[in-house]
Amino acid sequence: MRLINENYLELQGSYLFSEIAKRVNRFKEENPDADILRLGIGDVTRPLVPAVVEAIKKAVDDMASADTFRGYGPEQGYDFLREKIAQHDYCERGIAITADEVFVSDGAKCDTGNIQELLGTEVHIAVTDPVYPVYVDTNVMAGRSGNFDPAEGRYTNITYLGVTEENGFVPELPDERVDVIYLCYPNNPTGTVLTKAELAKWVDFAGKNNALILFDAAYEAYVTEPDIPRSIYEIEGAKEVAIEFRSFSKTAGFTGARCAYTVVPKALKGYDSDGNEHSLNAMWLRRHTTKFNGVPYYTQRGAEACYTPEGKSQIQTDIDYYLGNAKIILQGLKEAGIKAFGGVNSPYVWLKCPGQMKSWDFFDKLLKEAHVVGTPGAGFGRSGEGYFRLTGFNTKENTMKAIERLMKLK
Amino acid sequence: MRLINENYLELQGSYLFSEIAKRVNRFKEENPDADILRLGIGDVTRPLVPAVVEAIKKAVDDMASADTFRGYGPEQGYDFLREKIAQHDYCERGIAITADEVFVSDGAKCDTGNIQELLGTEVHIAVTDPVYPVYVDTNVMAGRSGNFDPAEGRYTNITYLGVTEENGFVPELPDERVDVIYLCYPNNPTGTVLTKAELAKWVDFAGKNNALILFDAAYEAYVTEPDIPRSIYEIEGAKEVAIEFRSFSKTAGFTGARCAYTVVPKALKGYDSDGNEHSLNAMWLRRHTTKFNGVPYYTQRGAEACYTPEGKSQIQTDIDYYLGNAKIILQGLKEAGIKAFGGVNSPYVWLKCPGQMKSWDFFDKLLKEAHVVGTPGAGFGRSGEGYFRLTGFNTKENTMKAIERLMKLK
Repeated sequence: MRLINENYLELQGSYLFSEIAKRVNRFKEENPDADILRLGIGDVTRPLVPAVVEAIKKAVDDMASADTFRGYGPEQGYDFLREKIAQHDYCERGIAITADEVFVSDGAKCDTGNIQELLGTEVHIAVTDPVYPVYVDTNVMAGRSGNFDPAEGRYTNITYLGVTEENGFVPELPDERVDVIYLCYPNNPTGTVLTKAELAKWVDFAGKNNALILFDAAYEAYVTEPDIPRSIYEIEGAKEVAIEFRSFSKTAGFTGARCAYTVVPKALKGYDSDGNEHSLNAMWLRRHTTKFNGVPYYTQRGAEACYTPEGKSQIQTDIDYYLGNAKIILQGLKEAGIKAFGGVNSPYVWLKCPGQMKSWDFFDKLLKEAHVVGTPGAGFGRSGEGYFRLTGFNTKENTMKAIERLMKLK
Repeated sequence: MRLINENYLELQGSYLFSEIAKRVNRFKEENPDADILRLGIGDVTRPLVPAVVEAIKKAVDDMASADTFRGYGPEQGYDFLREKIAQHDYCERGIAITADEVFVSDGAKCDTGNIQELLGTEVHIAVTDPVYPVYVDTNVMAGRSGNFDPAEGRYTNITYLGVTEENGFVPELPDERVDVIYLCYPNNPTGTVLTKAELAKWVDFAGKNNALILFDAAYEAYVTEPDIPRSIYEIEGAKEVAIEFRSFSKTAGFTGARCAYTVVPKALKGYDSDGNEHSLNAMWLRRHTTKFNGVPYYTQRGAEACYTPEGKSQIQTDIDYYLGNAKIILQGLKEAGIKAFGGVNSPYVWLKCPGQMKSWDFFDKLLKEAHVVGTPGAGFGRSGEGYFRLTGFNTKENTMKAIERLMKLK
């Protein structure tokens, strides 16, 4: 009998972006001449930088000749890229990570989704609220979530850590047993950050409770302030308790090119039910080599070019551009008397909907009166209700125009 | 507590290719001047064809300009590629498959590994023996295999279907309950095929038993004889019982470029424990959009170019080249009085080790006396013992030289 994985039946519809598209399309039909500006974009819009383009094309040429052709590569990534990552993103910043602790993949989404396969189904997970939905859905699929409680809008077996205005967007340590904690900093969707001291509390908690931190650092390149960690391994003891996910997507514009990496330190151990230690690095290597076949050779050459002096400088220009847009948004909201958060170490700005409006009501108002599209905070979880996400990923011109309109809202 | 997925503890070491490398390296140290020829290669060696290279480079140029830049694409693949696949690989061959039944991915290995996530842990799986190890290992990781029995060399909860000289390499229908059947045809590693009538028996069996066939057609492009199906959907009723996996790897040389696709027909249903029907197409879409983020835009453009008249013709030249090598191997073995199978609709030749030798003994003899490397059949499962795999993926020159040496073996 073709019995399905019944955990899938507990998945909730992912209506956020389809509902946005539906409402925008309806508005466009009714107002065909409206100049709609999108500040809800979670995707980069600047093209790949010249250093990366050149490296990819050169590597595609390698593939065109038998002498230089590359077939199957190592599933965990070519040494040339793993070594550059270890050197530039860690060693040069004083963090001792070795190339064999770095696993190259086709996306942080894939890795944050797949990593839970290494864990027993009985582990208890904690996520922030609001949250990136992949962390939750992949655990629902694996049977760890319990049932969905519609009244609460939450799964019964997941611990939700509020990231809210009330706690200054600093989640509190849980007072119940938690085995695995997903943390994304700089945070998606709120754009807020943790200081080193705040993150150190979580590393300490994980150490004391033999818990695992899954640290999504996909936005680390946007950190501008001192004392804000770009890697969890800046915290002492983190190599014993944390896996870190990073990506070339939001840094070097690889959302359509697909390259990311995950660091699984060799010092990090898991336990079997008899209490024996097992290397999570070895387990991830086995998973990676069994279920994955590597990132295209030419894409890895493109990622490698991100670490050249030209690549670094060209990429920084793009990040500064997006951060500049976030600044424009923040200032405009301030002038309009709207409370806003994030946007300093992140391309994301998280605003409190004016006049106690609900997220979707503000979405409709912004669309109808300003012809501006954003993302309702409620779509990221219960604690996002009453909030709204704008991003710095559009052009500077469009961002300025959108904010001018937003400031004129009644 | 960081409890691990203890199913991983049941995985057996995958020593085949590392053991080969170890023995070859030792031989090279002892015989530094030996001209070692590799006929064990499971990877293509011909470069990407010009039509593909041109399309990839043009698409990389698209990524270099804001006007034509592509960020996140649809996780299941761009329509331009899904439509070409449905049209050229199915509709033009009289099989009604629609674009929304085609899911583009980064590899058939990934897809055949991930597909089992849609199924309950209690389903009973069957694999052929010898077999591509990914089918087994991914089910071990999911907890479906039972324990490994070292005396039998098999897992206790898996049904093994012999693909052997005794049954003419045509597996027999199982006489026990089986819910999921992995079939790879043209077969890896034996290079043998099933006729339409033989495959129809499996479709019929699956229909009668509500079983699911996972049909790996990664080598379909090598089919040269009439009456050998290139797709399981050539068999009536297959859309109700089978998922098909295909790849650009062994056809268009994409082993280092990474693009494949899986067909999940909308007519195919799974069941929950209450007997309700669920669409496996919808479940795979959910899985794909949650845990995967699409194949690079430029790689998909390269895959699209495989369907142009130039692309088709250039790719066929390469396939004919590899098939020509397989023919050379087959003829040489025949002249040497060694029994051999496959190699007609496949780049793989499966030979019976002469003189009742065991697989690894023949490996050593071939290496030491002919300086030729192949793959011991025992590495693919118990029924592979006493057999050996050679492949047509080296150059014609090396293939001829290797076979000349092999024919002189005492």
